[in-house]
Amino acid sequence: MKKQITILGSTGSIGTQTLQVIQNEPENFEVFALSAWRNLELLKEQIINFKPKYAVVRDDKIAKELINRLNNKISCHILYGEYGLTKISTLPDVDLIVVAITGMAALKPTIEAINAKKQICLANKEIIVSAGEIIMKKAKENNIKIIPIDSEHSAIFQCIMPDFYENIEKVIITASGGPFYHLKESALENISIEEALNHPNWQMGKKVSIDSATLMNKGLEVIEAYWLFNVPLNKIEVLIHPQSYIHSLVQYDDGSMIAQLSNHDMRIPIHFALHYPVRIKNTLPRINLAKIGQLTFKKLDSKRFPSIELCYEAIRQGGTLPVVLNAANEVAVNAFLNQGLRFKDIVKVVSMVMKNHQNQSNPNIHDIIYQDRETRKLTEKICKENIN
Amino acid sequence: MKKQITILGSTGSIGTQTLQVIQNEPENFEVFALSAWRNLELLKEQIINFKPKYAVVRDDKIAKELINRLNNKISCHILYGEYGLTKISTLPDVDLIVVAITGMAALKPTIEAINAKKQICLANKEIIVSAGEIIMKKAKENNIKIIPIDSEHSAIFQCIMPDFYENIEKVIITASGGPFYHLKESALENISIEEALNHPNWQMGKKVSIDSATLMNKGLEVIEAYWLFNVPLNKIEVLIHPQSYIHSLVQYDDGSMIAQLSNHDMRIPIHFALHYPVRIKNTLPRINLAKIGQLTFKKLDSKRFPSIELCYEAIRQGGTLPVVLNAANEVAVNAFLNQGLRFKDIVKVVSMVMKNHQNQSNPNIHDIIYQDRETRKLTEKICKENIN
Repeated sequence: MKKQITILGSTGSIGTQTLQVIQNEPENFEVFALSAWRNLELLKEQIINFKPKYAVVRDDKIAKELINRLNNKISCHILYGEYGLTKISTLPDVDLIVVAITGMAALKPTIEAINAKKQICLANKEIIVSAGEIIMKKAKENNIKIIPIDSEHSAIFQCIMPDFYENIEKVIITASGGPFYHLKESALENISIEEALNHPNWQMGKKVSIDSATLMNKGLEVIEAYWLFNVPLNKIEVLIHPQSYIHSLVQYDDGSMIAQLSNHDMRIPIHFALHYPVRIKNTLPRINLAKIGQLTFKKLDSKRFPSIELCYEAIRQGGTLPVVLNAANEVAVNAFLNQGLRFKDIVKVVSMVMKNHQNQSNPNIHDIIYQDRETRKLTEKICKENIN
Repeated sequence: MKKQITILGSTGSIGTQTLQVIQNEPENFEVFALSAWRNLELLKEQIINFKPKYAVVRDDKIAKELINRLNNKISCHILYGEYGLTKISTLPDVDLIVVAITGMAALKPTIEAINAKKQICLANKEIIVSAGEIIMKKAKENNIKIIPIDSEHSAIFQCIMPDFYENIEKVIITASGGPFYHLKESALENISIEEALNHPNWQMGKKVSIDSATLMNKGLEVIEAYWLFNVPLNKIEVLIHPQSYIHSLVQYDDGSMIAQLSNHDMRIPIHFALHYPVRIKNTLPRINLAKIGQLTFKKLDSKRFPSIELCYEAIRQGGTLPVVLNAANEVAVNAFLNQGLRFKDIVKVVSMVMKNHQNQSNPNIHDIIYQDRETRKLTEKICKENIN
């Protein structure tokens, strides 16, 4: 039986790589549905190549445009908006959802997919950061596993041996440190967009690249690990490992540490997630440690990169604070990329917004979406003040 | 229920460290029996401390001497020889045997322990190298697991996830390279005993230290892995990793590699083996990668260290050749340590003896023990010729 797959966000970095994996295994996978917000031309091409039954775009105008471009050449239902995303995530024929859109748009479709007992392969950090408690509770109720696609979380997932879950002493998330880890604090003042986008090890989307440069990405991954693996916060650590070949490690309480290593290729964790619970042979390039020669490690300097501590704090306080952290960061990164906010002010803005927030405990989904929206407005205002 | 433990070879390096682990957990373990060939004073002390029901020494003379020294202060049955070793490995009250004596003396007691369905924690390489096929067949028949104590094999054991056994693409055994890996071939001519015993990472017995210096140890570990994990020889590789923190790795066929790391402390794999199939918290020092700073890797130079290739050849040809390899090596190492054989001639002698051997396929235990004895005689002769 071929797995029927829906990809939310098929034209992004993870989406296109997921399609590469699928293309190599027509005997195992079939694309059931695709979605894309903006890149209509690529989506059209993907529809022609993979012949999904459904495709979802942002709104009715874009839907019409796509229908025009497809020009009756191919039969595919075109839907739009949150309704469309939720539909393609819950239809009975779907087996597995790859959640590869960024931002909160993924939240409702993911929750509904969980309710419909679909296997979830999660590449979106924002929703697990903002609504981790709700998502994991739903997953538990529906007895489904959330399989992470993030390389770090895929590594942890692979290093956690089910028999030894109670023996986990520490989850150690590795961090390349991004392009600026070697710089002094003063040198972080004048960072250009080009410099910040230039990640040493990975080719990624812009948002994730900037988050890697501020190390906010690593803090968000701490939160993600906290929810995905149900491990206390004081058992989660970040270790600087500039070469990014060890994707993460798990320390067991009998003195053994287990690590997962692989090449810098997101198709490896994608392939693992799509096939879980089995492993299937692929031809992706293997890691060659003799050729790599050395792996280095450093203690995290959380003083110079305070973003990670903000993330620990958000989880310690809980409630709506993680939503605020995530939304403020997205807006601040955008302001850096498009409106002239200085690099070093990204994390400062996030910290200010968090300090001003009146926390609300036990938020439901509506609270979370409301808080996300309000925080964005507030942060945009604060960014503008910081730019002038 | 406390596990009742027999230690074959309690006064050696692994034996004493096993007793350290046991001493820290009186709630989990009880020493049922101890054995030692030579170090009577330490054995006496261990008997007084751990109060085993049985102790085994080399012969009746030493047994009498031990009885005298104990002077009726403590009740312990004193036995001797192979009969004694077999008895303490098979008595109904025993749960687990730690096979920590070197050489072929461990063979019969181990086989009988397997027949008696005891859990085997194996630190002896020689018997698995010489009689791996027989031992593993017996273990399968009796449905028991052989738990390796060697740090490399413990690592592989921990990295092999039972669900993914069929997906093993490569077993990668790490090798520090020993004290001479950085030397040129010419510099290997004049190596003193002190230099050869001076291992960079581990404190070990003399025989193992010399085997590490010639890298024969790593070749024997390839053979050991071949039998313990039932992996084809062409899937077993050696990787030079001078710091010895990654104890071994398993490459899966979907591109992920799993590694086990820990401090240089044999009590970690001993503790793991004694508790298997569960993990139990201990207070042994944890590995600190930030402090270690770097791990390096190099391709094995099998031309400069031909011992490993001899081991691959022994398995490829099978039959009695592995017995011959092992016995010749033991005698040659002994000749280096005590009779003036040159360091660089150790492997040369082994190679000569192997070349002269008329291989016999499907040997039984008696064939193996006979061949072991004959090879020792022959090798002693060849060593003498090489010394003069």
